[in-house]
Amino acid sequence: MGRWTKKDIEYMRMALRLAAKATDKTYPNPMVGAVIVKNGAVVGKGYHKKAGCDHAEITAMKKAGDSCRGATMYVTLEPCDHYGKTPPCTGSIINSGIKKVVIASEDLNPLTAAKGIKRLRKAGISVRKGLLREEAVILNRKFNKFITEKMPYVTLKMAQSLDGKIAARDGSSKWISSRASRKFVKNMRETFDAIIVGSGTAAKDDPFLLGPGGRGHDVRRVVMDSRLRIKESSNLIRTVPLAPLTILTTSLAPERKVERFRKIRGIDVITVKSKKGKVSLRSGLRELAGRGVVNALVEGGGELAGSFVDEGLLDEVKFFISPRIIGGGYSSVKGRGVRNIRESLCLENTEYSFMGGDILVTGRVGAGKQFRRKNRGAATGICSRREP
Amino acid sequence: MGRWTKKDIEYMRMALRLAAKATDKTYPNPMVGAVIVKNGAVVGKGYHKKAGCDHAEITAMKKAGDSCRGATMYVTLEPCDHYGKTPPCTGSIINSGIKKVVIASEDLNPLTAAKGIKRLRKAGISVRKGLLREEAVILNRKFNKFITEKMPYVTLKMAQSLDGKIAARDGSSKWISSRASRKFVKNMRETFDAIIVGSGTAAKDDPFLLGPGGRGHDVRRVVMDSRLRIKESSNLIRTVPLAPLTILTTSLAPERKVERFRKIRGIDVITVKSKKGKVSLRSGLRELAGRGVVNALVEGGGELAGSFVDEGLLDEVKFFISPRIIGGGYSSVKGRGVRNIRESLCLENTEYSFMGGDILVTGRVGAGKQFRRKNRGAATGICSRREP
Repeated sequence: MGRWTKKDIEYMRMALRLAAKATDKTYPNPMVGAVIVKNGAVVGKGYHKKAGCDHAEITAMKKAGDSCRGATMYVTLEPCDHYGKTPPCTGSIINSGIKKVVIASEDLNPLTAAKGIKRLRKAGISVRKGLLREEAVILNRKFNKFITEKMPYVTLKMAQSLDGKIAARDGSSKWISSRASRKFVKNMRETFDAIIVGSGTAAKDDPFLLGPGGRGHDVRRVVMDSRLRIKESSNLIRTVPLAPLTILTTSLAPERKVERFRKIRGIDVITVKSKKGKVSLRSGLRELAGRGVVNALVEGGGELAGSFVDEGLLDEVKFFISPRIIGGGYSSVKGRGVRNIRESLCLENTEYSFMGGDILVTGRVGAGKQFRRKNRGAATGICSRREP
Repeated sequence: MGRWTKKDIEYMRMALRLAAKATDKTYPNPMVGAVIVKNGAVVGKGYHKKAGCDHAEITAMKKAGDSCRGATMYVTLEPCDHYGKTPPCTGSIINSGIKKVVIASEDLNPLTAAKGIKRLRKAGISVRKGLLREEAVILNRKFNKFITEKMPYVTLKMAQSLDGKIAARDGSSKWISSRASRKFVKNMRETFDAIIVGSGTAAKDDPFLLGPGGRGHDVRRVVMDSRLRIKESSNLIRTVPLAPLTILTTSLAPERKVERFRKIRGIDVITVKSKKGKVSLRSGLRELAGRGVVNALVEGGGELAGSFVDEGLLDEVKFFISPRIIGGGYSSVKGRGVRNIRESLCLENTEYSFMGGDILVTGRVGAGKQFRRKNRGAATGICSRREP
């Protein structure tokens, strides 16, 4: 097999751009894009729009029709070889007469990995893989975590002052961030499968966690509430008809309250292990993954954010920083914190944008975290800097 | 008097740019620039380079020579009419034959204000003022505060994580910020008259606070040390031959240690009022102003930064933010903090720059603070934001 040609790269990039059109809209399915090329011309293209809809390959083949015969398909993910909500793509590809398939990333699901490629090859189709693999893996990083670790991909969102405070001494926090930032957050929420807050924030802020203009949505609102302190009169419970609510609690919760809440339509009360009197976040996330949550947003407060940091459960952060100083007050991330500066969770692919006077810093939690997972407490070396 | 012409504005901008060439280099003098124009041509220009050197007007007149006769001078600050290190500029202007003087900003020193203008007018020179006044006042904001309030202009510098922490749980902080940021800070220090740290930082970090490469400078290093805890073996004391050291302490300090330190050449031990067991920052700053400190940099730690915030003594901030999360640990700004979110110290003229992976946020503490000074504890309305 030779190296990739410029044309190969061009077509796969096109497929990746197609896949990205449905970013964060396909869960619990991955994003996939496909392009079919014949005699140097694109004869069909498609992407997976939403769970339940046609897979990218199918859409592209429908568009190409008879032109599939003898054509090459560029697809960002190994085609599936199993029955899900739709029949396996491999069969359709084989029947279409496509003679060559170029794949960016292999299927990472241990139950199905490599099966699609094997099946295609067995049918005499030439299969090449690994073209722009890194881009494809990063694009589907949320899905990949879900499928390989059975855990949601967790993004922490914070709105804080320059000095890292989320509320003033009297607890007031409205509004630290600009109107533009808050509007952005409201829209952003709808790209997640779940929004998680701590019981303290639920009690203090009494949030709605609904869409723009207070409209309902199917984003699961989640409260980590080990003692089930949430009030029946809270906005989260009152608005259950508008959006589902999941309460993660522990055996520390009063049994009768648990029973009563379980009877309310739209509320899902899940009892998980406790950890130092709090909900075990790992157990809670696993339960959420079991309910199809791939993409979770943690919205605070500082205690909950700190626990996510301490347990090494963060994948990505979005910090909205307002150019102001609060001084003492409530820190955006509490908890124990990293032991040594070298264990800091360093961000990768950091991006900065400006929003109504605030700065938004977005980044993925880097290798430090991966390392810490396996090697708890040891220095990562990732952030280490020596004096010149 | 008519409005300003395009040419007027052009010449005054030139004078302002000249003045700014010596930014932070003229203290305890102001920055001043002057341009002399005759028959539509610039015949002389100058700026004040350093205390003890010629004033801007003199330099410009020397350049212009005989061309001064009948010419117009554009000068960013009202010419002085008193003997300082140099004779009054007014006399030289009158003698030169200049017939018109355009001034950006009046002298704000209550002892000398308006005297220069009066003197010039009395001698038959036409004087106009207020052209680009705001720019001139902002340019000399540090000097203006010094001359009107007899207090230094205070800039707080912080190097912190995204979540506002300056050290990890074990106290380690080396190095949060990038090499580029640290190099920038070292060079920046030399533009200040004094660098202030708290006794905690002096003990924990044992800093040198010297120039790049550990070279000496005449920047006064200041420790706020109410109980005179600093050790004789500390780097600050050991390097006294390289740069002056001022220790601000209180009556809580052991008298014999005060006496001993006072005998060390290059150390200035000043006893000021205490406030809740700490050095009264206001008294300390006043002492520094009395020693000619116009431009002071506070470099931490979090306790000291918090006290500056709580006492409303900050004029400007420079936050170096490293894209990493530390979680629990040491907050960059401690203290009591503002009571309500609406009292936050909002930054004005905020600027962002990128430095070796860090982001540097610079801003002036806005009107909120001015308001708080006069009206302590009341809401400023400056940062107030209502839900849309």
